Amino acid sequence: MARAWHLKSRPQGMPTPENFEFKEVALPPVGDGQIRVRNSWLSVDPYMRGRMNDVKSYVPPFQIGAPLEGGAVGEVLESKAEGFAPGDLVQHMGGWRDEAVVDARTANKLPNLGAPPEQFLGMLGVTGATAYFGLLDAASAKEGDIVFVSAAAGAVGSAVVQIAKAKGMTVIGSAGGAGKCDFVRSLGADRVVDYREGSILKGLAAAAPDGIDVYFDNVGADHLDAAFAVARNNARFAICGMIANYNDATPASFRFIARIIAARIRLKGFLVFDYMPRFGEFYAEMGPWLANGTVKSRETVVDGLDNTLDAFLGLFSGANTGKMLVRL
Amino acid sequence: MARAWHLKSRPQGMPTPENFEFKEVALPPVGDGQIRVRNSWLSVDPYMRGRMNDVKSYVPPFQIGAPLEGGAVGEVLESKAEGFAPGDLVQHMGGWRDEAVVDARTANKLPNLGAPPEQFLGMLGVTGATAYFGLLDAASAKEGDIVFVSAAAGAVGSAVVQIAKAKGMTVIGSAGGAGKCDFVRSLGADRVVDYREGSILKGLAAAAPDGIDVYFDNVGADHLDAAFAVARNNARFAICGMIANYNDATPASFRFIARIIAARIRLKGFLVFDYMPRFGEFYAEMGPWLANGTVKSRETVVDGLDNTLDAFLGLFSGANTGKMLVRL
Repeated sequence: MARAWHLKSRPQGMPTPENFEFKEVALPPVGDGQIRVRNSWLSVDPYMRGRMNDVKSYVPPFQIGAPLEGGAVGEVLESKAEGFAPGDLVQHMGGWRDEAVVDARTANKLPNLGAPPEQFLGMLGVTGATAYFGLLDAASAKEGDIVFVSAAAGAVGSAVVQIAKAKGMTVIGSAGGAGKCDFVRSLGADRVVDYREGSILKGLAAAAPDGIDVYFDNVGADHLDAAFAVARNNARFAICGMIANYNDATPASFRFIARIIAARIRLKGFLVFDYMPRFGEFYAEMGPWLANGTVKSRETVVDGLDNTLDAFLGLFSGANTGKMLVRL
Repeated sequence: MARAWHLKSRPQGMPTPENFEFKEVALPPVGDGQIRVRNSWLSVDPYMRGRMNDVKSYVPPFQIGAPLEGGAVGEVLESKAEGFAPGDLVQHMGGWRDEAVVDARTANKLPNLGAPPEQFLGMLGVTGATAYFGLLDAASAKEGDIVFVSAAAGAVGSAVVQIAKAKGMTVIGSAGGAGKCDFVRSLGADRVVDYREGSILKGLAAAAPDGIDVYFDNVGADHLDAAFAVARNNARFAICGMIANYNDATPASFRFIARIIAARIRLKGFLVFDYMPRFGEFYAEMGPWLANGTVKSRETVVDGLDNTLDAFLGLFSGANTGKMLVRL
């Protein structure tokens, strides 16, 4: 038997504990091409909220009554798949539970980069890769650019700040509260805007008197509108997430969206999964950056599988600094 | 003496006749490098509304008490500029008046493409070039794409429809009212949505059951939101204008903007002026298209300089089919 978090009902707005059920589940036998994994680390991420709705998107919705899924790192206990043996450490999508049977095709053996395994759910995983490809490819950011990144104390945002600094950019980050702003500053950000201290528009205008060349959007809504307002000509926006909207049925409104035209702004939505074939480029830069301290990994760790839901819900109240992880 | 339309006060919302004054004005003497032109055709365009506000944009605002400006075609009466002689036909920006003294550097002698001169304010002018570069460059539209264009009966929109068909695309156009929809169909559009018959979202979803690859936006607001809703993966949006917002202080709201991420949509704002160095490409394709009937030019012509304001205001109530022109 394994223990796993299940979706009990679809949340309306902010999820509540009543939408979930934590219970034992029988594991299927390990079939051909499959592995059984004991998880040691779980990832909780804002995008999971979208999968709780019954809408078509880039990943299918979670099913009611079925276990949730998500990024996880663990050790192979049993294998009927070529190339995988008991004892191997793997990253896979059978999270939200202590033990999982997964198709080996959806699992990756951790490359030997000298990093602790949980970093493959963070700076060396989809989190870091999202920051890397979003900034450098979707937004075409380059040395000398003035970059604004929202939710800069979050998992992706804190990676964006450090990658941008490593590449010679000027970085403005937004975060909520003095502690997080200090953290963003400690990552090397040139200027930090505390969105709890007033309108993000005023804060950003003051922090970016010369405007911005790049916006890395994790928030949407008022942050995106502020970025429209201060964008320089030919600014590029990488649209990574819109956490402000995930639990809010009110449509976001934009006073400055028409500046897309006058300033010739380019917006590009992206999904990190599209960059999977290029992960080699990412490892080649991020591995050394982590090893030599250019990029530091920061996690908020919650202990215990039974606290996974609290960890997830904390993402929407700003409980995490850096990457939110669950340690089993 | 010339007669010219002046800005008397800045409009709040929709402009009214009280914001303008039509009166005689003394022409300055023709200085070195200048020409005096008698206008025969004037252009009125939605972007002029933006210049009536006192805000920084890609063109400076109109000044209160000064004559308005805009595209015009006319005949040189007097020249102190090299390369210009009396009798030359020129396109220039000294519109909203019957006679103007302009710097010859801002005037273009009409190239000999066998087209009537007023077409250099339309299909062979910035209108046609806006459609051409917006569709093919900003939106990277290519053969086989499903293209949605809003305000498809308007000056730019009707050019987009025809260029897209000439390039082998499937075209869905939106317009307001049966007469305009028939016109859009007559241009070759595969499907037409009448936005006065119900929500543009429902209309577009029905007209584009397979979604859209490209959106050419002249409207913004509900049209842009509908395009977000039905965009296929890797859709490209050229953001040309947002006429729905020009006289409306209510911020546009978007229910489907987060689809930018899931569908990896690219939005690109553009200004035709940036493409001036590439007008040769445009003439090389549009000239033959007009000559052989692949592209047809349609104008709504208002006669008389004193009716210029009515022609301009008519742009916002849908009075024009195709390009709105004033004939002197």
